[in-house]
Amino acid sequence: MYHHIKKLMYTVNVGSPDPRFGNMLLEQFGGANGELAAAMQYSIQGLNCDDPERKDMLMDIGTEELSHLEIVGTLARMHLQPMKKSRDSAEADPLIAIAGGGGVGLFNSMGDAWTADYLKITGELDVDLRSNIAAEARAKIVYERLINFCDDPGTKDALQFLMTREITHMKAFSAALESLGKDPFSIGNIPPTPGLVDEYFNDSTGIGDAGETDARGPWNTGGNWKIVEAPELEQGVEGHSGKTIAKDHKPASDETGKARIKKSA
Amino acid sequence: MYHHIKKLMYTVNVGSPDPRFGNMLLEQFGGANGELAAAMQYSIQGLNCDDPERKDMLMDIGTEELSHLEIVGTLARMHLQPMKKSRDSAEADPLIAIAGGGGVGLFNSMGDAWTADYLKITGELDVDLRSNIAAEARAKIVYERLINFCDDPGTKDALQFLMTREITHMKAFSAALESLGKDPFSIGNIPPTPGLVDEYFNDSTGIGDAGETDARGPWNTGGNWKIVEAPELEQGVEGHSGKTIAKDHKPASDETGKARIKKSA
Amino acid sequence: MYHHIKKLMYTVNVGSPDPRFGNMLLEQFGGANGELAAAMQYSIQGLNCDDPERKDMLMDIGTEELSHLEIVGTLARMHLQPMKKSRDSAEADPLIAIAGGGGVGLFNSMGDAWTADYLKITGELDVDLRSNIAAEARAKIVYERLINFCDDPGTKDALQFLMTREITHMKAFSAALESLGKDPFSIGNIPPTPGLVDEYFNDSTGIGDAGETDARGPWNTGGNWKIVEAPELEQGVEGHSGKTIAKDHKPASDETGKARIKKSA
Amino acid sequence: MYHHIKKLMYTVNVGSPDPRFGNMLLEQFGGANGELAAAMQYSIQGLNCDDPERKDMLMDIGTEELSHLEIVGTLARMHLQPMKKSRDSAEADPLIAIAGGGGVGLFNSMGDAWTADYLKITGELDVDLRSNIAAEARAKIVYERLINFCDDPGTKDALQFLMTREITHMKAFSAALESLGKDPFSIGNIPPTPGLVDEYFNDSTGIGDAGETDARGPWNTGGNWKIVEAPELEQGVEGHSGKTIAKDHKPASDETGKARIKKSA
Amino acid sequence: MYHHIKKLMYTVNVGSPDPRFGNMLLEQFGGANGELAAAMQYSIQGLNCDDPERKDMLMDIGTEELSHLEIVGTLARMHLQPMKKSRDSAEADPLIAIAGGGGVGLFNSMGDAWTADYLKITGELDVDLRSNIAAEARAKIVYERLINFCDDPGTKDALQFLMTREITHMKAFSAALESLGKDPFSIGNIPPTPGLVDEYFNDSTGIGDAGETDARGPWNTGGNWKIVEAPELEQGVEGHSGKTIAKDHKPASDETGKARIKKSA
Amino acid sequence: MYHHIKKLMYTVNVGSPDPRFGNMLLEQFGGANGELAAAMQYSIQGLNCDDPERKDMLMDIGTEELSHLEIVGTLARMHLQPMKKSRDSAEADPLIAIAGGGGVGLFNSMGDAWTADYLKITGELDVDLRSNIAAEARAKIVYERLINFCDDPGTKDALQFLMTREITHMKAFSAALESLGKDPFSIGNIPPTPGLVDEYFNDSTGIGDAGETDARGPWNTGGNWKIVEAPELEQGVEGHSGKTIAKDHKPASDETGKARIKKSA
Repeated sequence: MYHHIKKLMYTVNVGSPDPRFGNMLLEQFGGANGELAAAMQYSIQGLNCDDPERKDMLMDIGTEELSHLEIVGTLARMHLQPMKKSRDSAEADPLIAIAGGGGVGLFNSMGDAWTADYLKITGELDVDLRSNIAAEARAKIVYERLINFCDDPGTKDALQFLMTREITHMKAFSAALESLGKDPFSIGNIPPTPGLVDEYFNDSTGIGDAGETDARGPWNTGGNWKIVEAPELEQGVEGHSGKTIAKDHKPASDETGKARIKKSA
Repeated sequence: MYHHIKKLMYTVNVGSPDPRFGNMLLEQFGGANGELAAAMQYSIQGLNCDDPERKDMLMDIGTEELSHLEIVGTLARMHLQPMKKSRDSAEADPLIAIAGGGGVGLFNSMGDAWTADYLKITGELDVDLRSNIAAEARAKIVYERLINFCDDPGTKDALQFLMTREITHMKAFSAALESLGKDPFSIGNIPPTPGLVDEYFNDSTGIGDAGETDARGPWNTGGNWKIVEAPELEQGVEGHSGKTIAKDHKPASDETGKARIKKSA
Repeated sequence: MYHHIKKLMYTVNVGSPDPRFGNMLLEQFGGANGELAAAMQYSIQGLNCDDPERKDMLMDIGTEELSHLEIVGTLARMHLQPMKKSRDSAEADPLIAIAGGGGVGLFNSMGDAWTADYLKITGELDVDLRSNIAAEARAKIVYERLINFCDDPGTKDALQFLMTREITHMKAFSAALESLGKDPFSIGNIPPTPGLVDEYFNDSTGIGDAGETDARGPWNTGGNWKIVEAPELEQGVEGHSGKTIAKDHKPASDETGKARIKKSA
Repeated sequence: MYHHIKKLMYTVNVGSPDPRFGNMLLEQFGGANGELAAAMQYSIQGLNCDDPERKDMLMDIGTEELSHLEIVGTLARMHLQPMKKSRDSAEADPLIAIAGGGGVGLFNSMGDAWTADYLKITGELDVDLRSNIAAEARAKIVYERLINFCDDPGTKDALQFLMTREITHMKAFSAALESLGKDPFSIGNIPPTPGLVDEYFNDSTGIGDAGETDARGPWNTGGNWKIVEAPELEQGVEGHSGKTIAKDHKPASDETGKARIKKSA
Repeated sequence: MYHHIKKLMYTVNVGSPDPRFGNMLLEQFGGANGELAAAMQYSIQGLNCDDPERKDMLMDIGTEELSHLEIVGTLARMHLQPMKKSRDSAEADPLIAIAGGGGVGLFNSMGDAWTADYLKITGELDVDLRSNIAAEARAKIVYERLINFCDDPGTKDALQFLMTREITHMKAFSAALESLGKDPFSIGNIPPTPGLVDEYFNDSTGIGDAGETDARGPWNTGGNWKIVEAPELEQGVEGHSGKTIAKDHKPASDETGKARIKKSA
Repeated sequence: MYHHIKKLMYTVNVGSPDPRFGNMLLEQFGGANGELAAAMQYSIQGLNCDDPERKDMLMDIGTEELSHLEIVGTLARMHLQPMKKSRDSAEADPLIAIAGGGGVGLFNSMGDAWTADYLKITGELDVDLRSNIAAEARAKIVYERLINFCDDPGTKDALQFLMTREITHMKAFSAALESLGKDPFSIGNIPPTPGLVDEYFNDSTGIGDAGETDARGPWNTGGNWKIVEAPELEQGVEGHSGKTIAKDHKPASDETGKARIKKSA
């Protein structure tokens, strides 16, 4: 059950309305990484959650995001209201001006209607928590960009509040994930195929227009990593020209006796 | 530049086609967590990336996902093909049967057209890597569920290959994120507000229908965490009845002269 | 600000889960006339509303719809949960089964993601109230159809509760509209053109395949109504054959001296 | 069957084209409350309608809306055509300019493709008529806003014609609804639960940032109305702290002997 | 201006309703290649068309498609109507059953709302005619598939009528395109780059899993065609290993002296 | 299998970035006729194709379009990058600026997310080839319009390259279609109804506001064409007034003895 209290969670003061900035703010009202997306993602994950402790957390944070939605909407409305009267302002977002009368709607800064396609809900708690950590990181950077484009001190204060809370939530979700005590790369119940799971396919090769080359780093070197050079070309060029380009390269499949990557006989 | 090699990255063998399973498989072809989503998310992040080393990784993995898309599409088509002739099969997915002639299209298992709204691309490398870690976790669990509903050994083998590769990529993205050497909760350049960032708002209270209660865990207790009890009710009930329900609770506004958010003393 | 209480607004008891009915229930969770649509439509109208009294009503009802969303989601999840294990159940909604692990998502019964395109928000209070009255009427009939397809007594009870509340809201919105004291056909400030506003164009003529004919009723006859017979044909046939088919028909424009419908000289 | 007559239903004269206004006009061509939405909503309702008299009305008005679509499209095209040559004009709507060559497409003022998600069609005649009354009210206010932003006299004339017709249709739909002779709050066949239907839940409480307080009006007071104070808080705070915050408040469920809102044992 | 005549353009007789077939039929009502798509594509092209003769043709055919929409909708409704009462039928399309009461809506066979994203309108007459030829070919094959899945003779008759008309329109659009007297590969005003325009890039090489190999045909051989072998690999492998894999292969750019594909300085 | 080579297929040089032009360029990145649409349409048609020779062609061209996507994305990013810092630039596309940090995303010039609804894939080879010919014609004209709005020589060069390739592909698809040796109006297996297939319905009549009249041309005159005058009015007016307006007009159905268009007895 939900209850609404008329006061905003954060006092909103806007000096002089800036309709084009108000339009940008809609990213956090009806946009892909905005407050409704956060509220719905966490609350519905909570609704599906069988772990009563982390369910509580999902509902706590999902509910807070609803209060944030209200703050952003109030801020955006204050900035957008001149659209009702000013043709110049109205051109910043004719959908808000003409169809909405200068009031906010569930659209992003380009007038796209909010869609649940933005949400990531899998019903698998640890997976959902990873989606939430990423979602909070995205929301944080979006608020930062808004702050950078904002001239109004009152608006900046409110955005700083909202931006801070995203980090709070990111910390909570991270702690909840860690508290599950699972191996970070163990998802679900079926284990990945050993050996194959450690092969890094070098599928992008050559030298880029800006001189970029193949890179090595902890994402493909060290530990159990084994780099497989251009498995496509091994096969592809073989098919194309009848010979392999790198004869010294022995596919992993030879070792297992099973054609992981199909070869011609 | 891209090159295509006619061989699939993994040999696809299907015993007896199962159109309703083929329809489920479309989740990983044209669905929210499927292979096109992965290919596009990583490749476009790569295109935007100014870090040449991690850009290489994004292109390597983005390209591999294109090869996966081809595998899933080939598998799905084998399972869906009976739709062309059998009315009963066609009812499993009339869109594929009637509009597609039994061939695959970029739809999910419910016929929804693939949309770029599925993608998470922010142009901020560490944020994007978090989105990718979460995306791989989602893709892994979806493959596991498909395997659990699958009866055909050849199909299961191919799905096991694809599922394994998602864990490979998850490891690579995690290593790349760590290699950036950033504080895990430092996103962008503007720091969050100290103090406020450590407050956990208990916005969902009471006892649930299944007996759920407020929970404590590392996501709200220990370290710097400070739990703020139901900030809404503090304000809300005050507004409603003219008195606070928790008189020992002193609003922050008293201290600052500005009612931002009520805090415990 | 919002606060969440863990108890549901209405106790949900499900005897034996029925996944295909659970799928139908999603219409009221993530569908066009469902509870999220209601919650968002009223709450955002409230956020935009300058009339403090009716704003309170919009927030009261918008908040109640959030509690309804939670009830419907809980009900649907109970019915959908067998999808996690049963292939047969999973075929009822593979998106929920495969991508959602048997948990609910913001989709309708055909897997379409919820979209803000469902909402009607104009920032004009009396117009918004009319949209709300219609929305409640739609929600009521949808609940009735669900009840008619439902076999489980506990589910039927919950649906009866929810259906009843839609009528409550419909009454409240109607009373609020009446209390504005406006002429029911006076919208905004610019008056319609007198005369023209009372002309009913008979744009569909002839006898239908089931014998339907042109009808007269209070929607085109009596009061100030004046029926204009097939204004298209007057012009169209004239253009086509050089003569009017119904010479005794005198266009209304002749009377006003202004060519409402353009005629050739 | 449909027939098209080359003359427009209203003569369109545009003095000097105004591409940014042309873009605004697209709201009524391919927008949520525009002429295609009206034409499709009424015509498809008509197609589904078993009442031959009101079906005739739905087809009359649905067909007129097609003629309006043509007027708006012609007007918009006249205003948008400079986009073909002028880079400055093209920036007003690059989709129309680049993809459409300065011609109109089924988009709104922000380039969103028209979608049938805008439509409200339930197959229940009285419900559909309510949706239509609301739709006409929305279309009227949108035309008014366009007139207010328009400088061109010829365009204003055409918009006045179109705006007037919306009121005509609103009157016709209202008369048709009344002529059904149904109780205004009787929808479908299953009656709402007595008692519960008259309870108004005060789900938004407290004092807002602008001093807004709980309001009383005919939407919650008088007649059979009974206000239920914050049912969530009754339960929620009870669950949270073990006691109710407002002991003088007795839940309605006590009176009926039936747990409308679930209580702890 | 449009006029509606109550009789259908083709008599619709349905023996016994088949709800699952009715659902399939929705592909041609609210689907991507259906009658509304055709009606809107041609009529809006006509609205934008400056060539009065071909504009007349676009309006003739666009209007006929509206009459077809009405036929398909009537057919579909007859087949879908049992959904109102039968739970088993309702499962064939719960959206139509629950939200639509067994009446048709602008959805395809999988419940996706019709979208103007289906349309191809460029404002360039010859280009639009090519889009229309393709659209008619698609509509024809979709009707054929529906006929193949249909058991009801009356329905088959109506579908044969509709299918035939698509070929009629395809002929008309083809004749109109030819009558423009343009070179078939001359689009717009800016000529393509000579030489480059005749190069066929062999971007997919190797031997496929089913033994597919590189093919030659009039699409890459004969006339002015020049096949460029795997331009990516020429560059890519060079970048990767420092040498070309096929030294006997001389890039086309060498021959023309112009860097078609970027060269290092 | 796919392989990526770091060099672009065409060198991209941008003099001075032009964010508003960069926004226009997104039409060919994530727009309806853009490179991803082309890549996906041809590659998925190829995946479904049972004709190994034309499948090879579809994969060749589909793969080339992926390389084009990379070129357009790189170009667009160069033009859009100032959005990261400049508020004025950011207003050109706030979605790219705020949510994307100045990097490209799969959106068109109005911020609409790319959708597979843009694609035309039927699984019928000759039909698909017609869709591809039309798609290439559309892509060509869009590139031409972009060139016309572009001031930067390096960008123009790249666009000329891309535009030229569209004509190359159009030629290849046309040759492939011709090589199938089918009658151009023979689609699928069920023949259209003789006689009816040659009737041209004159469904738009009269004289337009600009003096347009009914036109004759090879699309309705000559060969086997037979013009049927306003079949609707024949019926419609009969139904309306009890008499036909053009008694000398004898419906074609009389001649065939079969009621093509239903008449009253």
